[in-house]
Amino acid sequence: MSIQSDLPPTGADAAIDDANRRAVELICAAEPVLVGVRPARDVMEGLDERTVLTSGPPLPWEEYTGGQRTAVIGGALYEGLAADAEQADARLRSGEIRVAGCQDYGCVGSLAGVTTASMPVLVVEDARSGSHGYCTLFEGKSPARLNYGVYNDEVRETLQYLEHVVAPLLADAVDRAGGVPLWPIIRRALHMGDELHSRNTAGTLLFTRELLPHLVALAREGRQEVDEVVDYMTSGDYFFLRASMAASKATMDAARDVAGSTVVRAMALSCKEFGIRVAGLGDEWFRGPLPEMESGSVFPGHTVEDIEFMGGESPITESAGLGGFAQAAAFPLQAWQGGTPERMVEMNLEMYEITVAEHTHYKIPFFGYRGVPVGIDVRRVVETGIAPVMDIGIAGRGGGQIGAGAFRAPMECFTAAHDALARRAGAPSPA
Amino acid sequence: MSIQSDLPPTGADAAIDDANRRAVELICAAEPVLVGVRPARDVMEGLDERTVLTSGPPLPWEEYTGGQRTAVIGGALYEGLAADAEQADARLRSGEIRVAGCQDYGCVGSLAGVTTASMPVLVVEDARSGSHGYCTLFEGKSPARLNYGVYNDEVRETLQYLEHVVAPLLADAVDRAGGVPLWPIIRRALHMGDELHSRNTAGTLLFTRELLPHLVALAREGRQEVDEVVDYMTSGDYFFLRASMAASKATMDAARDVAGSTVVRAMALSCKEFGIRVAGLGDEWFRGPLPEMESGSVFPGHTVEDIEFMGGESPITESAGLGGFAQAAAFPLQAWQGGTPERMVEMNLEMYEITVAEHTHYKIPFFGYRGVPVGIDVRRVVETGIAPVMDIGIAGRGGGQIGAGAFRAPMECFTAAHDALARRAGAPSPA
Repeated sequence: MSIQSDLPPTGADAAIDDANRRAVELICAAEPVLVGVRPARDVMEGLDERTVLTSGPPLPWEEYTGGQRTAVIGGALYEGLAADAEQADARLRSGEIRVAGCQDYGCVGSLAGVTTASMPVLVVEDARSGSHGYCTLFEGKSPARLNYGVYNDEVRETLQYLEHVVAPLLADAVDRAGGVPLWPIIRRALHMGDELHSRNTAGTLLFTRELLPHLVALAREGRQEVDEVVDYMTSGDYFFLRASMAASKATMDAARDVAGSTVVRAMALSCKEFGIRVAGLGDEWFRGPLPEMESGSVFPGHTVEDIEFMGGESPITESAGLGGFAQAAAFPLQAWQGGTPERMVEMNLEMYEITVAEHTHYKIPFFGYRGVPVGIDVRRVVETGIAPVMDIGIAGRGGGQIGAGAFRAPMECFTAAHDALARRAGAPSPA
Repeated sequence: MSIQSDLPPTGADAAIDDANRRAVELICAAEPVLVGVRPARDVMEGLDERTVLTSGPPLPWEEYTGGQRTAVIGGALYEGLAADAEQADARLRSGEIRVAGCQDYGCVGSLAGVTTASMPVLVVEDARSGSHGYCTLFEGKSPARLNYGVYNDEVRETLQYLEHVVAPLLADAVDRAGGVPLWPIIRRALHMGDELHSRNTAGTLLFTRELLPHLVALAREGRQEVDEVVDYMTSGDYFFLRASMAASKATMDAARDVAGSTVVRAMALSCKEFGIRVAGLGDEWFRGPLPEMESGSVFPGHTVEDIEFMGGESPITESAGLGGFAQAAAFPLQAWQGGTPERMVEMNLEMYEITVAEHTHYKIPFFGYRGVPVGIDVRRVVETGIAPVMDIGIAGRGGGQIGAGAFRAPMECFTAAHDALARRAGAPSPA
């Protein structure tokens, strides 16, 4: 551990503190706007038709297991890259089909997070920095979803429906609106019981309200699918999560290259590992074991034994100060993922111990409109031993959502990043 | 005070406790549904064209002052009952135009609460008991509104717009929907930062979402006014208050005639007095002075010196367990009417001290989904000295809204009702 002594503790190095302040200023200044709904291939640079993106620090194909493996194969089949699962597996082994990490292409994946060229994505742009974030569409209320590790006829039909019915209508509505600013919706939803990760009830309604005049106009023009798309959007209360994730991605990428900053820029998991990226450490993932459940609730008919990790990049919302970092704005969440209001308050307050600042726009009414804690500082996590808390949907063995809970990020990722920062601090500066 | 000894203290009289339990069961069982939007004359029994209804325990015409007086005259002019204010005043003095209390005709008035025959009202029915509640429509965001004591060309045009454009479209949408159940909206809005008196942001969105497919259908049929009506409904965040009031009125009238019950059935004020009705004491108002502000906030450019009472029956929501009795569900309210989250929690908890039960459907997430305190017991208010707290919009001298605050009902009303209950308890039972 001697190498760690090379990284000065929090507050002892003005250059790091300055860099972190700069990073958080960029994060707070971000104004994410939904600028379109487009096929991934049209907007995600470098994404070719033979690539299947999935959640978490990337792994060699052989290491993907369970639901995440099923979902990647499902993505390949949906894209027509193989005739059946066996052929898809063979082609993934041979490299004829490539598996890669979502975040290397600007998108964030929900659970397994499988994203392929023809799938529609929400296109979010930070109006201030110009950075982008992408995310596929909510798959609806059925427990059988590709992102929860299922691929069958029902899932394929849902994906086709999203591609051919929902996305074109949404795209037209968003285009008519001239884009939909997401930050005012996020700000407001925090006053309406959402934390924008596991609860998006208000966000979904507020977003629908913004599109409403444009949906009415499209109905007037004879678009019969308006009603069913509205029903799809509002019936599951989860539609807005993908917008919140893409907004958080665009927001955090605004602080992508702040040299010297120890602020966490992303947290994500695969079926096997958890990983974080740090603003001052480029695109490297610092890896650790899977997160531990702090409190949670599994749906009737399931037990915690049924829990299976199959990836997930929605903790990008926690990186941006939402989700578990705003849970005291979302007491209704206890009915969904367990816990008590007292514990939610405690956990939320803990997050102020490991962050650089309080958000200037996103606030928590119960804390007297105190800004959400934002900018997780790797140093503070290591110094305090307090790990970030995340509100996460729980997948079950065999696929499907079986619950939700509050999880702690593993300390190992933060000590690994801390070591890397220490090595960098100890190393001679690059010329 | 010797007469009070005739009324046994809380818990000492099984018959009163039984009656109160019955009253609260009726209140909790109520399922208020918006069944239509109609001209007051078509649905409010006994309302003739020469009557102007206004808020609070009724007064002789001469005793109405300030904004409430202006509003009653405005109602008469809007109804075409006089050519100008002077003539309206003369006819109100002579009795040619009659002034009466809203609640004697089944409606509840917001602030001055002026309701006349041609004005459209929300028609709410309790699907369980068949009781009704009526309330006029939200007048929009302008500070110049009839219910805030202003009548001029702008106000008249707004009222005409409500009558001729908004109400017919809303009526058609509600009819197409086959009615809109309000209790699921209220239940849900309590999980989204509303207390359904001074905050109705979520209720308004949830209500709009229920009507959305029907509004889309009307747009398809060529109804051009859909967009502006949606804009009117959603832009002020206050639309749903009138639905919440009418729902509360229908709910409380379900417990109208529970003999022997000491539960408060309505709280309301005029420009001069505060009054309560009690389930076991028929339609008599027990009167006291105007309420006192506990905490509040006046808009920039105004001071507390500018506050003027001009009536209000929205505390029907507190009678039903909403508003100040559910303020711990609505921490965002502090930005609107002052106060702190800590004080809101304290005040909300106090209300459990003076109520008979916890609501079986309406719950507060921050209290671990504890039911809202419901059924204000006159005995408990007198015994504890804790007065009901109400979230109230504040009108200013000269008209218009100038703020909002938490107010305490005056103890005098409760001691007066307590005396009446004691007299009744001491009197021989009617044959």
